[in-house]
Amino acid sequence: MSKYWSNLTANLQPYIPGEQPKDQKYIKLNTNENPYPPSPRVIEAIKQAANDDLRLYPDPTCQQLCDTIAQYYGLRSNQVFVGNGSDEILAFVFPAFFNPSQKILFPDITYSFYPVYAQLYGQTYETVAVDEAFNIHAEHYCVPNGGIVIPNPNAPTAEYMTLPALRTILDANRDQVVVVDEAYIDFGGQSAITYINEYPNLLVVQTLSKSRSLAGLRVGMAYGHEDLIEGLNRIKNSFNSYTLDRLALAGAIAAFEDEAYFEETTAKVIATREWSVNHLRELGFHVIESKANFVFASHPQALAADLFKQLKEKGILVRYFNKPRIDQFLRISIGTDEEMEALISALHSLLGK
Amino acid sequence: MSKYWSNLTANLQPYIPGEQPKDQKYIKLNTNENPYPPSPRVIEAIKQAANDDLRLYPDPTCQQLCDTIAQYYGLRSNQVFVGNGSDEILAFVFPAFFNPSQKILFPDITYSFYPVYAQLYGQTYETVAVDEAFNIHAEHYCVPNGGIVIPNPNAPTAEYMTLPALRTILDANRDQVVVVDEAYIDFGGQSAITYINEYPNLLVVQTLSKSRSLAGLRVGMAYGHEDLIEGLNRIKNSFNSYTLDRLALAGAIAAFEDEAYFEETTAKVIATREWSVNHLRELGFHVIESKANFVFASHPQALAADLFKQLKEKGILVRYFNKPRIDQFLRISIGTDEEMEALISALHSLLGK
Repeated sequence: MSKYWSNLTANLQPYIPGEQPKDQKYIKLNTNENPYPPSPRVIEAIKQAANDDLRLYPDPTCQQLCDTIAQYYGLRSNQVFVGNGSDEILAFVFPAFFNPSQKILFPDITYSFYPVYAQLYGQTYETVAVDEAFNIHAEHYCVPNGGIVIPNPNAPTAEYMTLPALRTILDANRDQVVVVDEAYIDFGGQSAITYINEYPNLLVVQTLSKSRSLAGLRVGMAYGHEDLIEGLNRIKNSFNSYTLDRLALAGAIAAFEDEAYFEETTAKVIATREWSVNHLRELGFHVIESKANFVFASHPQALAADLFKQLKEKGILVRYFNKPRIDQFLRISIGTDEEMEALISALHSLLGK
Repeated sequence: MSKYWSNLTANLQPYIPGEQPKDQKYIKLNTNENPYPPSPRVIEAIKQAANDDLRLYPDPTCQQLCDTIAQYYGLRSNQVFVGNGSDEILAFVFPAFFNPSQKILFPDITYSFYPVYAQLYGQTYETVAVDEAFNIHAEHYCVPNGGIVIPNPNAPTAEYMTLPALRTILDANRDQVVVVDEAYIDFGGQSAITYINEYPNLLVVQTLSKSRSLAGLRVGMAYGHEDLIEGLNRIKNSFNSYTLDRLALAGAIAAFEDEAYFEETTAKVIATREWSVNHLRELGFHVIESKANFVFASHPQALAADLFKQLKEKGILVRYFNKPRIDQFLRISIGTDEEMEALISALHSLLGK
């Protein structure tokens, strides 16, 4: 606390990122990174862009990247927005579309950054309880509100909402913006992008951090009606006109140009996930059906907090949330086959099986 | 205008970056980029960092970069903050230290992003008139206020404030944060960094975009008392925990490690500036004394708007602001010797000399 802090700064409860311990080499299954490297074409494009032109500002409109993405998804360029990770885009979404006086709705168990954004902009929100099986019910979002954020699949539960259920929410909220946060959609879910020309109230947010193996490059995307994209640009240009550097722009374009690599690595993650779910269930875990690159699992005979600690001692990092309703669960990112075999083997011995 | 925009979005007047025309190759003297490329060590460090680790999140604390900068300036690491360009840092400064009810002070002629930040956060501000010669007077800032932003040197005027004058402002505002925006300080000015251990109310903001030739990499820095740095981190971690990608972190560290290159290119820009000022004055221009990598100049016999247009037709881009008090001036970035010779030659023929 400092007398120089604004009231806002003093009252904020900032987001806490997952731990990145440097004390030893871990099998890192705690921050939902992709176990496979980015496409070689991405690496090559970045090396090419590491040249004397770095003395010049990047294109503030990110036109070439927006064009590439628009073509990839069959959208128009003015339906595409890009930012410094999907976190930054969400940080623009809240002031762009939500008014302080009206309650924003999102699930009670979800990405813990949502309430922080609301706090940052002095907004009110109401969390909507997911059911006992962590399902999000569309009808709970068909009530008066000032905007909606639906993570799909949800994190940390991995629960996936079908497109028809999303349509129910979009139909009931024609006057509010419905944001679908699809950070994990590429691992088996169906994207709401197909609804964009039909629903001017829909904004889909995605990222290169997970399915494109580029958490270290910081690139996120949003798709929606051109009026929504213009709204995001108004906020962006009141905050920072040059959010993406020349290297991130070059790498992101290359990522969308290597479809074969994307399909191959995504399929591998999905296959390893299915293998992992089966083995976790064999060990007695209750595992939520997942369409993400992580699973959410609890064991009836072992405390999640204990397992978390014991796994860390064995050099395996997973994520544990000491929060109501989910404090008996572990969130486990899907690694390589070898990493998941090591996890299953460690759990085997910890559970005395 | 869209019914989905928040009231904030609808009422904002976003910043407009300098034009980056793509219709032809220009001599680009309009956005204060450095005419020399970044250090070869920066390019090499980025190429090294373009590797498989891009699948992993960057260090959200940017510890290694903060350590490097702290050592460079003789500060402690907790007195250093880094962000996605100094624009992003300024966008964190406004909510971190300024309350909506109290008036922020900054000059009437200055970087046009300051009032946009205030608008974004619903803050009030009062612009303080610079004098006829564009000087900022310290005593004008010794009045009740809710925070102060002093650009030094100022843009677009290039006016420089001495350290003793800054001290007057710091002494008179012990309960407010005084932000000194030193984007252009390395071209001949003295940095207020030397005051940091003495004034807990001082925050110095700098950038790699100008003197380090890295406008395309998007890295800014802030230095101040650890409480101020903590305040900035609270806002950052309520907005986006990973603002700097792995490539920007690697390149920025290398930039601080190549002092010889920095000194050589900065000296060249300063020498070319002095040559340019002399030749502009010989052509009859009134040129403000500059300690930046640009000059602000007006000609008694020619309209600035006309010269801007005529230079563009000749393939030379400079910056013209159609704003009260400065609409008779051109802001001209310092290019290479060859570029400035081309400018002087073009002006020579335009002025019929």
